[in-house]
Amino acid sequence: MDEQPQWLTPVEQDAWRSVIRMYERLGARLARCLQSESCLSGADYAVLVKLTGVPDGRMRHVELARSLEWEKSRMSHQISRMAKRGLVVREECPEDGRGAFVVITEAGREVIAEAAPRHANAVRRLFIDPLTPGELGTLACPADRIVEHMEKQS
Amino acid sequence: MDEQPQWLTPVEQDAWRSVIRMYERLGARLARCLQSESCLSGADYAVLVKLTGVPDGRMRHVELARSLEWEKSRMSHQISRMAKRGLVVREECPEDGRGAFVVITEAGREVIAEAAPRHANAVRRLFIDPLTPGELGTLACPADRIVEHMEKQS
Repeated sequence: MDEQPQWLTPVEQDAWRSVIRMYERLGARLARCLQSESCLSGADYAVLVKLTGVPDGRMRHVELARSLEWEKSRMSHQISRMAKRGLVVREECPEDGRGAFVVITEAGREVIAEAAPRHANAVRRLFIDPLTPGELGTLACPADRIVEHMEKQS
Repeated sequence: MDEQPQWLTPVEQDAWRSVIRMYERLGARLARCLQSESCLSGADYAVLVKLTGVPDGRMRHVELARSLEWEKSRMSHQISRMAKRGLVVREECPEDGRGAFVVITEAGREVIAEAAPRHANAVRRLFIDPLTPGELGTLACPADRIVEHMEKQS
């Protein structure tokens, strides 16, 4: 490895640890809430939210994977599990060569309709309430910049 | 459910999405870097860092789980996998009733010594570089408050 290590300064290290710790705790807590209140994993929730946001609740498998930035194999396992529980169905369409669709079922719509307000309450309680309105912006703005910067590097 | 849903306002929703998106992208990218540069998962890395920070690289299994906020079963699977690869060993101590120790091996120390500077470079490139020094502080401060608030609620 030619690259010289540039160790983080104590200030950088602290900022990095704070941000990572927040994400880990918040992620774990929200996942527990989703599971206990709505019997959904974070992944189930993310898929159902995506599908309720598109016409007819219907999206190509590959597009769904791309929009969530998941590997195709992870998406396949996820969709198989959700199909077994009746939350989505997979619609093959061999004729057009662009792969199967994933479609939300009526049961899936009912589950997400119940889960979404509970999840919003949890996000408000855990993430919004402790912050002032100004701080919300000071979190969002550098977060967007980090993502843009990352996209330029890929 | 008695609680009334309090939907997020558009500003709150945007901030929440920005923060979550940053976290997901950053986590995925850093995980890929760790895997391709050092053949470690994020979990492997977290365990090795913890163990290098304690005397003799030795920690009780339960304490290690607590310090990373993992379930005991997740920690057991993780340690089994790492032990197979020779990165750690498990030392049983049936006499004192407080459970096994996990100890980093010489090979584990070599792996983390190689991985750490690469990981620091990746964190700098992806997270520190796009931010001004002032922004680092403005990220850390609300992040700490969210964690404190969460701890009071549990």
